[in-house]
Amino acid sequence: MTSPQQHSLKETKGSDRNHIGVALGQQVIDVGALQEQRLFTGPILSQKGSCFRKEHLNEFMSLGTSAWAEARATLQRLLSSSEGAVRDNRKLIEAAVVPLASVAMQLPAQIGDYTDFYVSKQHAFNCGALFRGPGHELQPNWVHMPVAYHGRSSSILVSGQNIKRPWGQALTPGSLNPEVVPSKALDFELEMGCFIGSGNGLGESIPVDGADSQIFGMVLLNDWTARDIQKWEYVPLGPFNGKNFATQISPWIVTSEALKPFLCEAPEQQPPVLPYLQESKRSTYDIHVAADIIPAGSDLHYRVARTNFQTMYFTWPQMIAHHTLGGCNLRPGDLLGSGTISGGGPGQRGCLLEATCGGREPLQLTPVVNEEVPQDVDDTRRAQRLMRTYLNDGDMVIMSGWCENSSGEQLSFGTCQGAVLPSHKLL
Amino acid sequence: MTSPQQHSLKETKGSDRNHIGVALGQQVIDVGALQEQRLFTGPILSQKGSCFRKEHLNEFMSLGTSAWAEARATLQRLLSSSEGAVRDNRKLIEAAVVPLASVAMQLPAQIGDYTDFYVSKQHAFNCGALFRGPGHELQPNWVHMPVAYHGRSSSILVSGQNIKRPWGQALTPGSLNPEVVPSKALDFELEMGCFIGSGNGLGESIPVDGADSQIFGMVLLNDWTARDIQKWEYVPLGPFNGKNFATQISPWIVTSEALKPFLCEAPEQQPPVLPYLQESKRSTYDIHVAADIIPAGSDLHYRVARTNFQTMYFTWPQMIAHHTLGGCNLRPGDLLGSGTISGGGPGQRGCLLEATCGGREPLQLTPVVNEEVPQDVDDTRRAQRLMRTYLNDGDMVIMSGWCENSSGEQLSFGTCQGAVLPSHKLL
Ligand SMILES: [Ca+2]
Ligand SMILES: [Ca+2]
Ligand SMILES: [Mg+2]
Ligand SMILES: [Mg+2]
Ligand code: NI
Repeated sequence: MTSPQQHSLKETKGSDRNHIGVALGQQVIDVGALQEQRLFTGPILSQKGSCFRKEHLNEFMSLGTSAWAEARATLQRLLSSSEGAVRDNRKLIEAAVVPLASVAMQLPAQIGDYTDFYVSKQHAFNCGALFRGPGHELQPNWVHMPVAYHGRSSSILVSGQNIKRPWGQALTPGSLNPEVVPSKALDFELEMGCFIGSGNGLGESIPVDGADSQIFGMVLLNDWTARDIQKWEYVPLGPFNGKNFATQISPWIVTSEALKPFLCEAPEQQPPVLPYLQESKRSTYDIHVAADIIPAGSDLHYRVARTNFQTMYFTWPQMIAHHTLGGCNLRPGDLLGSGTISGGGPGQRGCLLEATCGGREPLQLTPVVNEEVPQDVDDTRRAQRLMRTYLNDGDMVIMSGWCENSSGEQLSFGTCQGAVLPSHKLL
Repeated sequence: MTSPQQHSLKETKGSDRNHIGVALGQQVIDVGALQEQRLFTGPILSQKGSCFRKEHLNEFMSLGTSAWAEARATLQRLLSSSEGAVRDNRKLIEAAVVPLASVAMQLPAQIGDYTDFYVSKQHAFNCGALFRGPGHELQPNWVHMPVAYHGRSSSILVSGQNIKRPWGQALTPGSLNPEVVPSKALDFELEMGCFIGSGNGLGESIPVDGADSQIFGMVLLNDWTARDIQKWEYVPLGPFNGKNFATQISPWIVTSEALKPFLCEAPEQQPPVLPYLQESKRSTYDIHVAADIIPAGSDLHYRVARTNFQTMYFTWPQMIAHHTLGGCNLRPGDLLGSGTISGGGPGQRGCLLEATCGGREPLQLTPVVNEEVPQDVDDTRRAQRLMRTYLNDGDMVIMSGWCENSSGEQLSFGTCQGAVLPSHKLL
């Protein structure tokens, strides 16, 4: 195994149709081309001769953990330096190996349903304080269940696409009558997404122990949100136009197989959860995540938030067990969002709503000082501040995620990025 | 034209795969079989030679109003008694005409996204009174926008399938801690559904004038709801497990073409709506709807509600204009629910929550006296009452819808029916 990244699975775009690919360093392996050569010879995949020769990963996702492990092992063997089946087949290499830079990314699955959770305690507390005021921060149900709503599937985009500022109904502070305006409070939400594997039948529940086998893999997720629209519309049925104009994900799914070295303990839950949410072993993933803004015309990343997925109060298995408690069926390729990932400190708040205390305290952002900042940036430019309350037209939101453990193993989620375009013309 | 019903379009099940069919009295015409014979010779459909040779209607839906009108005109001509192309082709008749009774109904479209609105003023008022108490019935936003939430696509069922009573978290009255129980307050919601035609691109809004061209057709819709689960979970992000275990529709889509004779004026809106919701001509559909319960072992229909779709405060074009205001894309085959249809009087409340004042006043139901009640039912049985607060296991919920106008034209939506099964075993 050269790098866990090789097991990210995604769809790439050729000249003719989309292909399923696996990233290996700066190359992409077209696994459909390998499958055409009948190189997946394991007991499961030798019977599923076309699961990679599709435009989306849904069929492969539906096969479950044994098939995923078999695919990973086969790829590791095929791509190892001691194996000749690929290395010595120049024609196959020509057909199956593509430079990463030449590839256009697409959505990796047909997403039948998208559900967004709300399982960061700090985020729920901060939002509750802003929307409902002190004493009403956490709703009484929040500690008992992973709260969620159904999101919009049609407007899920892949990293690299840009987002038009949405029009919507909003109340001007002080006024009783709404107006129709391009959102004045466009925000992002720094989240992780989880793609569902084999799923469950309607009328069946997935027990929490074992529900980790439903996690095909994870991506970064930006739940673009218009706060002024959301605030006016969301009572009593939840967010609608405030969110359905766009949700964006990073295109490379990092599989749960690849994430195993980064399993860690999940936070303690007090009060104890109900039996159907009680896990024999509470584990989650240690994933660093960050959200930056690159303003129009700049190459500097101004950091809004850096935090970690492991702070989330409920785990994916708990979210899956709750989602299916009443018998709701999850289908292969369904997408779950975790909800905004926020830590307790400043610089750890995963959206502008929180970071600016509901728009009342504009942020003074400074550029990230690391390898992402161009070498030739001088100290004067590094010292420049960026003032933001909500997003300006032209702002690029760029989210990143990475794992690193004490054994020195590293894994990158790449980025989820999109810029804000001016609103469209209303006819 | 023998009956507007012939233009209901739906999918039927043959021995091998699903077929798209049109109902004509007690027969179903397999329009894919007609298309195979190149009988759709109009300018649009002659170029779309396989739109009916599919398992779902999505492609035909995407073609828009001109194609729908052409299909209707071609079918009327082909099936008229003066035309020989079908009548004189015994082999074609054998292949394309199937008795309605032999057909198993399927979902007519692949539903990418399902949105449920909440546009009956009486229903919103009644629910608000029950959930939030007097003085808080209508939220301030309600008169300004057709309020909606995103629903669950995976669990949309067609009439005839049965529904397991869902498990869920609920609060016992008086307790502060939730428990996990099979819902003790299982309810239905009497709604109409609208299938979307050609849709819009992401980042585009559909103007309200002309949005009626997006209405491919309508169905009856039962938004099954567990009130105890909904009540505990829905703040602040809206309904989730209280609704995602099942939503059910009648299988025959009655097309907007067929509904034209039943257009009528929509209710006046006070205060005036915002410009993007202002229609040059406010029209809606005059459709009678009813919801009955048939208890286990009985053949009597006990009527809970009878009301009319035309009472809805916002129209489909307004719902479509609002849904797309921020640029959210609707795709062909997307489903909109209207929200529960309730009138002001007793016997006009489209769900048990309302009809029983939140479960406080059990209903005494009497059988419907009409052609649906078997002739041999004697007066003693007709006089029997059925007591219900919420649904019992074994109860069949059966919704019906029909149009009739002063010219004597009639049109039936058929039924949307499903029975309540006991909850599944939790592992
Ligand atoms: Ca979110
Ligand atoms: Ca409803
Ligand atoms: Mg979103
Ligand atoms: Mg429903
Ligand atoms: Ni190709």
